Amino acid sequence: MNPAGIRSVALFGKSGSAEVVESLVSLLEHLHGRGLDVLVEGEIAAALGMVADAASIESICANADVAIVLGGDGTLLNAARRLAAHEVPLVGINQGRLGFMTDIARADMLAAIDRLLAGEFAADRRMLLDARVWRGGECAFSTLALNDVVVNKGDLGRMIEIEVRVDGDFLYVLRADGMIVATPTGSTAYALSANGPILQPAVPGIALVPLCPHGLTHRPITISDACRIEMTLVHDARVHFDGQGHYDARAGDTVRVARSAHDVILLHPPGYSYFAMLREKLHWSATPRRT
Amino acid sequence: MNPAGIRSVALFGKSGSAEVVESLVSLLEHLHGRGLDVLVEGEIAAALGMVADAASIESICANADVAIVLGGDGTLLNAARRLAAHEVPLVGINQGRLGFMTDIARADMLAAIDRLLAGEFAADRRMLLDARVWRGGECAFSTLALNDVVVNKGDLGRMIEIEVRVDGDFLYVLRADGMIVATPTGSTAYALSANGPILQPAVPGIALVPLCPHGLTHRPITISDACRIEMTLVHDARVHFDGQGHYDARAGDTVRVARSAHDVILLHPPGYSYFAMLREKLHWSATPRRT
Amino acid sequence: MNPAGIRSVALFGKSGSAEVVESLVSLLEHLHGRGLDVLVEGEIAAALGMVADAASIESICANADVAIVLGGDGTLLNAARRLAAHEVPLVGINQGRLGFMTDIARADMLAAIDRLLAGEFAADRRMLLDARVWRGGECAFSTLALNDVVVNKGDLGRMIEIEVRVDGDFLYVLRADGMIVATPTGSTAYALSANGPILQPAVPGIALVPLCPHGLTHRPITISDACRIEMTLVHDARVHFDGQGHYDARAGDTVRVARSAHDVILLHPPGYSYFAMLREKLHWSATPRRT
Amino acid sequence: MNPAGIRSVALFGKSGSAEVVESLVSLLEHLHGRGLDVLVEGEIAAALGMVADAASIESICANADVAIVLGGDGTLLNAARRLAAHEVPLVGINQGRLGFMTDIARADMLAAIDRLLAGEFAADRRMLLDARVWRGGECAFSTLALNDVVVNKGDLGRMIEIEVRVDGDFLYVLRADGMIVATPTGSTAYALSANGPILQPAVPGIALVPLCPHGLTHRPITISDACRIEMTLVHDARVHFDGQGHYDARAGDTVRVARSAHDVILLHPPGYSYFAMLREKLHWSATPRRT
Repeated sequence: MNPAGIRSVALFGKSGSAEVVESLVSLLEHLHGRGLDVLVEGEIAAALGMVADAASIESICANADVAIVLGGDGTLLNAARRLAAHEVPLVGINQGRLGFMTDIARADMLAAIDRLLAGEFAADRRMLLDARVWRGGECAFSTLALNDVVVNKGDLGRMIEIEVRVDGDFLYVLRADGMIVATPTGSTAYALSANGPILQPAVPGIALVPLCPHGLTHRPITISDACRIEMTLVHDARVHFDGQGHYDARAGDTVRVARSAHDVILLHPPGYSYFAMLREKLHWSATPRRT
Repeated sequence: MNPAGIRSVALFGKSGSAEVVESLVSLLEHLHGRGLDVLVEGEIAAALGMVADAASIESICANADVAIVLGGDGTLLNAARRLAAHEVPLVGINQGRLGFMTDIARADMLAAIDRLLAGEFAADRRMLLDARVWRGGECAFSTLALNDVVVNKGDLGRMIEIEVRVDGDFLYVLRADGMIVATPTGSTAYALSANGPILQPAVPGIALVPLCPHGLTHRPITISDACRIEMTLVHDARVHFDGQGHYDARAGDTVRVARSAHDVILLHPPGYSYFAMLREKLHWSATPRRT
Repeated sequence: MNPAGIRSVALFGKSGSAEVVESLVSLLEHLHGRGLDVLVEGEIAAALGMVADAASIESICANADVAIVLGGDGTLLNAARRLAAHEVPLVGINQGRLGFMTDIARADMLAAIDRLLAGEFAADRRMLLDARVWRGGECAFSTLALNDVVVNKGDLGRMIEIEVRVDGDFLYVLRADGMIVATPTGSTAYALSANGPILQPAVPGIALVPLCPHGLTHRPITISDACRIEMTLVHDARVHFDGQGHYDARAGDTVRVARSAHDVILLHPPGYSYFAMLREKLHWSATPRRT
Repeated sequence: MNPAGIRSVALFGKSGSAEVVESLVSLLEHLHGRGLDVLVEGEIAAALGMVADAASIESICANADVAIVLGGDGTLLNAARRLAAHEVPLVGINQGRLGFMTDIARADMLAAIDRLLAGEFAADRRMLLDARVWRGGECAFSTLALNDVVVNKGDLGRMIEIEVRVDGDFLYVLRADGMIVATPTGSTAYALSANGPILQPAVPGIALVPLCPHGLTHRPITISDACRIEMTLVHDARVHFDGQGHYDARAGDTVRVARSAHDVILLHPPGYSYFAMLREKLHWSATPRRT
């Protein structure tokens, strides 16, 4: 057995390109060569022509010691939510450009796997949001989000109003295109485009970032991750989760968001640095100069 | 003795107007009437014509159970830093407009004192920053700040460069007019004017807010309050503390900022709400409408 | 005849409240008392129970020397677009709060009318945008806008891509929630919520304001009003006009926006000041203080 | 004679590196080889060891048909202000990175000169600001600026107050670190770091961009270039011109800024595109992606 104590590895990815398939095949061979059990998730099992051998999410949650995700940040977000309840650690291998979370280049993939097995990877816990839509005293919808929960006007042309409470205390009535509730992980995703603050993952905070607020003093606020956020909708609105799914909520519904009891565990290779990643993604490394 | 266990009260304020003197006199009488020892700080002792009876800061720190500050947020900031090492709790009475921290109106002052003595006030711990300027291996200057430590270009016409590290990890070289390092308390002060994020005081984070950064992707970042921030100056720069004092640092100096071991304890009257204060100060209460 | 040479007045408004009806009735009497022809637009004719006497837009365009609009800025926007081709000047009377364009308070309405007739009002020309959606070489839709033309993702959950050209020159591919193309009049409306710049109406410019752009360097740009803006849609998108109507455009369509040959003429009472209005609406008048 | 009708060329540059000297020498030879009179400005004449042959600014203004500037945008700004009264056209050759205005790479320098002489360059007029400081009815200082006039707090630690008028109309009292008054040319310089709007040079507007305004609704405003801006100082302040010179103004002084009667004429090589330059400088070309 390897020093990391890994016996069983789950493989996630986004099917599609021949390149991804090629990567998957070489990864699969490499893992088998290291004597590991490999659980191939359904979508990529199909891409590999091995549908019959696809592992169910239940089986993966029950058995996998680690999940390897080939794709972009979106693919990792998706896998992370599905594995969250069992806190299966994730390793992200980017297929194209470096991602905020998929921090291993495909070219370095096989060597990285060996260092993972050697126990050289470091764990990085990331908070998840638990979001529920309440309607008439019942929970009409619930989900998890690693990046953000966004309430927006959907296809309504006009701004919406949202009454916001934090731990039961009235915060304000927001008149805006919507509201982003972001984790530190999500603070560098959509929230950043809406002028939200970057939160280092070690900060136990949740950012509330209004989308095009009517009132010019409605600046983003970061609140403690121990708080419960309630957004009561004055108009119909759409609630989005990690930009990957949505629920059509109605005027009168309350969207309740709080930190989940579960975290996502990302595994990073030796030498990983959150700040180095930020510099790379935000072009700080180039010490940008305009003059 | 009163239910709050208060025997000795320190009085701070900003001398000047006849109105303040009048308030101080009535406050003094009221406190004496309640059988309390009153320690009058030097500046206002002078304003009251009782210089001989002025209490030293040492005596106040050693004896006062609570400090009452008449003035604006600036006056409270000043008193807070001076009392920080002994964590004497503070009550802020605003002389004019409501402050972010001076949340008792002068008109309600005497009634509020009685509720304070009755033990009805609630404590609100606020982090302090400990800032030191290091030069050639020696600490050339050190101070505390409740709002912010600001490194800026001083009277230099051009932008400055600052090499920033967090817990020893390189963050970036900032080319800007300067950098604000703000506590949650300071996040609604100067940092807010520089597009910094609001941090609820319960968030254990420190905001790094660049001032007019040359690189357009240099967004504010909030880091954990457990982190040590080091800013090495490429050019001469001026370091400001709560906007009330400054130190002229030189190229090569390193400004080191970390959370202080001491907190400031603010005491708030019953019914105080941080969000209600924000709504009032940022005109959210009026549910601002522009259409 | 009055000094302003006004014979015929059109009346526009937003039906609904009893208050509006009351205002309309007194306005109508006042205008009749001054010997003027009054053309009552359909919607408010209905509100006044005088449907049979409603004037058609054609008739109003052909005959009215001025249009009086009771309502908010939205009501005025609507009337302005309908009257644009004939450049019938507009007077805006606000029913509730002061508007950016409806600058006469209802209480001052009758006195204001007399000053209008006395020729004391001043004309303020505002540019209009002419927006057309081109599909396969044909114009599939066209309209005017006084505030803005907004291309956004509609009910699509994800960001859209828009290829932008100015006078045929490639500007950029924008990846964002959308793009606001705003006139100076619209610069204080939706565009302001999206961090767009305020443009004094005398500036012959059009503001391009990205909505939550993915690239952090995509700042608003103001271009000359002589320019033709072309936005080719990479994804399906929705095109909004003054926030009051929309058209569902498709990937491959090009939205072409340019200054219209027609202007809107607003009439302001003596003493009107654009800056005073801004101060009032943006709470500058109160010389806002946060400390 | 060449098709462009150029007989006499002035040479400007920033002395210093051996590289610049080398470029200057080859440029000088090339120009002489084309039969042109070359007027070498003092600073670089010194760098070339030909002080005795240095041309005075008066002589350059009187005789030069075009000025070639080797350096960065700062060098060009400086030359532009000195030549402004005579509107000598300028060609900018960048010594290092591409500038906003120095758009010819050093490697392409000689070929570019030939195309300039062939009459293939296009003129691009840029507005200049005329700034004057008035004190007690007298003009205490006056200068020109191609980028911006900045009034800031200088070495004053605190914010300053500025009373702003436009064409004599009161705009507001600004409480801020300062105010940037920028031309379209300057809109991509310092003003951009302060969240100012980009103005295409064809827009006849002047941007007023507050620096860290205390009031959160103090957004940048663009006003017509026909307007006269007056900033009356409530506190002592420093006035900066293109970031290259300053004047210490006092409380009570009024800084008056208006468009100068003179323009700066930039000459661009064939194929020059303002938008292409923006894409390059703001990293739009790379269609920045963060996901």
